[in-house]
Amino acid sequence: MNTLPPVADIEMRRATLLRMLHWLASGRVQPQALSDVYQNAIDRLNPKLNAYVDLRPSLTQEQALAADRRRRDGVIGRLDGIPIAIKDNFDVGGMPTRAGMRRRTRVAEVDAHAVARLRASGAVLLGKTNMDEGALGMATNNPHYGATHNPHRLGYTAGGSSGGAAAAVASGLAAAAIGSDSLGSIRIPASYCGVYALKPTHGEISTRGLVPAARRLDAVGLLARGVDDLTVLLQTLAGYDADDARSRRRRVAFSPPDWEPGNLRAGFLPDLAAIGVEQDVIDVFEAALEKLPRELGERRTVDFSDWDFAKTRRAGLLLMEAEMLNTFSEELADEAYPVSPQFRQMVDFAATKSAAQYAAADLVLDAATLKMRRLFAQVDVLVLPTTSQGAFPLDGPVPTSQADLCSFASLAGCPAVSIPMGTLPNGMPIGMQLVGARGSDLRLLELAAVCASSLDAEPEYPVEPVG
Amino acid sequence: MNTLPPVADIEMRRATLLRMLHWLASGRVQPQALSDVYQNAIDRLNPKLNAYVDLRPSLTQEQALAADRRRRDGVIGRLDGIPIAIKDNFDVGGMPTRAGMRRRTRVAEVDAHAVARLRASGAVLLGKTNMDEGALGMATNNPHYGATHNPHRLGYTAGGSSGGAAAAVASGLAAAAIGSDSLGSIRIPASYCGVYALKPTHGEISTRGLVPAARRLDAVGLLARGVDDLTVLLQTLAGYDADDARSRRRRVAFSPPDWEPGNLRAGFLPDLAAIGVEQDVIDVFEAALEKLPRELGERRTVDFSDWDFAKTRRAGLLLMEAEMLNTFSEELADEAYPVSPQFRQMVDFAATKSAAQYAAADLVLDAATLKMRRLFAQVDVLVLPTTSQGAFPLDGPVPTSQADLCSFASLAGCPAVSIPMGTLPNGMPIGMQLVGARGSDLRLLELAAVCASSLDAEPEYPVEPVG
Repeated sequence: MNTLPPVADIEMRRATLLRMLHWLASGRVQPQALSDVYQNAIDRLNPKLNAYVDLRPSLTQEQALAADRRRRDGVIGRLDGIPIAIKDNFDVGGMPTRAGMRRRTRVAEVDAHAVARLRASGAVLLGKTNMDEGALGMATNNPHYGATHNPHRLGYTAGGSSGGAAAAVASGLAAAAIGSDSLGSIRIPASYCGVYALKPTHGEISTRGLVPAARRLDAVGLLARGVDDLTVLLQTLAGYDADDARSRRRRVAFSPPDWEPGNLRAGFLPDLAAIGVEQDVIDVFEAALEKLPRELGERRTVDFSDWDFAKTRRAGLLLMEAEMLNTFSEELADEAYPVSPQFRQMVDFAATKSAAQYAAADLVLDAATLKMRRLFAQVDVLVLPTTSQGAFPLDGPVPTSQADLCSFASLAGCPAVSIPMGTLPNGMPIGMQLVGARGSDLRLLELAAVCASSLDAEPEYPVEPVG
Repeated sequence: MNTLPPVADIEMRRATLLRMLHWLASGRVQPQALSDVYQNAIDRLNPKLNAYVDLRPSLTQEQALAADRRRRDGVIGRLDGIPIAIKDNFDVGGMPTRAGMRRRTRVAEVDAHAVARLRASGAVLLGKTNMDEGALGMATNNPHYGATHNPHRLGYTAGGSSGGAAAAVASGLAAAAIGSDSLGSIRIPASYCGVYALKPTHGEISTRGLVPAARRLDAVGLLARGVDDLTVLLQTLAGYDADDARSRRRRVAFSPPDWEPGNLRAGFLPDLAAIGVEQDVIDVFEAALEKLPRELGERRTVDFSDWDFAKTRRAGLLLMEAEMLNTFSEELADEAYPVSPQFRQMVDFAATKSAAQYAAADLVLDAATLKMRRLFAQVDVLVLPTTSQGAFPLDGPVPTSQADLCSFASLAGCPAVSIPMGTLPNGMPIGMQLVGARGSDLRLLELAAVCASSLDAEPEYPVEPVG
């Protein structure tokens, strides 16, 4: 059909989504061949990584064949033929939405809004990825479906709750993935696995068909091996959905990308160590900033003395756990398929909390909104590490502060991007987080792209699992 | 200064705010004279009605003198010289914000946002009006400051919680008033007292400096003796406030007034009796609709079979009572100035509720948003009585369903207007409610003005207290 040289399998797994689109457009790669490469890699590596917990090769094959036909007919969608992974808390018609829980075996009838948009754009759905039980956790060490391993080092966490999705993208088992982020569940695994992530402005991508964690915090998040991939995914998935109470008609158009260092003011926290960021992470962060002498424009230290990161995270967790008592009431009542003792303990803690305590936690959302408005009157972007530490051993203690640096953007409903910024002394990746005002998603992604080019800190994809 | 005939005192108290502005502009009436008429009427009638609970005649006098000076200098604000009443849960610098509670004697330092806007527009603040204790009630039968009487019949409730404000406007003791409306607290007293009210789209008027009842439901509401007065007040008070987390930049301009019966679809509930509306109210409502043969355009029965009015009201009350446990924690703890047993009982009930129950009640807000979107895809306005019954005796039982017809617009964040629609067999007034989609405030007010002209159902203002 054409005479361009073929693309090696490993290149297909290494490539960004945008590169794959070029190959598909030029005919150098056919959708089915691309899908086969990914499916073969999944067959080989998923037993080690446990990134996917539900695979339907024949359904994937059907989608890839249909994509082949569309290419031949010349009627293609924006992501036609791109192999994508779906976190297992999104409804995919014909598959159960287990959300990391044992009892949830009922098959979804219709796709979640985001999944339907992906399907309509021609994406090939590879399968559903592992997550923390009920999305309540940040380690993807699931009591029912096993742990997802970090491809950079087996035995280490991939982060959570979208750990399966991040591990799949890092190890070349998916071109990109969608997950959910309520307090950092997309950004934390992106940081630990060395991939790119976007949690968009709340309300931009409909959460209909996503199992709720805390509706006021829930956002559909995106994972990919390149920043620009996130832009394409956002533009494919964003839009008003009248059936999602939190979906918003965009007030103004997304701020246009207009990166210009002379006009940029970047905000930095005055003392990362004081809020619990490990020294190794601070060192990588500072080294990364040295590689960005002009990219971030004028640097300003911003005042967060009025902001308690740990309190914010605890307030967010209470909102989440209390709502889960309702969302998972059937699962919590079913003794035949019990939830794990750990999950039970967390929601039991919330069950001791009063309506007034919930109302008080909910007030933190207002405080975050006001803080955000004041912050983004002073600076255009807040720059900080994505996580206070890197990935930790699956058999070790779980740090309680994992979501501390992510929760602000969740409570304030702001967009946040995580990009790989370097490697910790133990060889594990770590992410830099850029947070912007609501609606500044495209501007933030452009700034992230400029920084990513200068940092050149992404791992060699695909990250082959290292034992 | 001019030769136009003077305006009789009674005319000044009968007039709409707009008429007063004309008189002031033409020089027929001076601000100080207008203020004196209102202050004299207050001196005479407030002991009977108990509409005001805090009056500072010397401060009012100062404001009126300043308004006189501005008129002479020709530098005037939009409401310059208009005498206005403020519900006692708004901060007015130099006065305590008692919110109907006994313990709250601390003097506010700065004006609430809405009060500051009124002051900046030149309005003359007459004093602070009575309300239910903590705004938690709908009778303005305050255990600490006494009951406000309905000017149509002493011994009857003025409604609540903004009962003092509505009684003041009806009886010509204020040109207009601002109050708060979380589940109907502006609309219910407007219905019972025979005045006009607007609860605007949430976020349009900043609630900063208003004692919170339930932040997700709280709206600054407006009371006046004419629909068009509400429009002027809205345009004076609305606007973005960066310091109020719930203040919204207007997504689109307010929908322009464009009343045209041929293009209007009005929605009606299928069976008012089934949701607890008293037959007398239904009779007045139907008689009123007969006087509006074309004004409401095409009439459609809308489906509310999926909507439980009582459940909605209870969910709203739980949100309010739980938040009050936090807002009034000091007042609840102070045994020297105890809250009333009734107030204590209501918040004690909320204290038995769990965080999960709060989260479940909060879900009703999402349901209301979805219901509203579907409703206003089918019709342009929902038309229903404002209340299920008229004013009741202060010494009799308090109906529990008072807020049922108002709560939908509160939970959905929609604008709602109440206009007098007629008189019940016992001689008491009753209101018609028009509810529109978010942002349709001006359109709704225009429709209300057209209907009000045809109904001609407003009482003879000022309503002199009838024993």
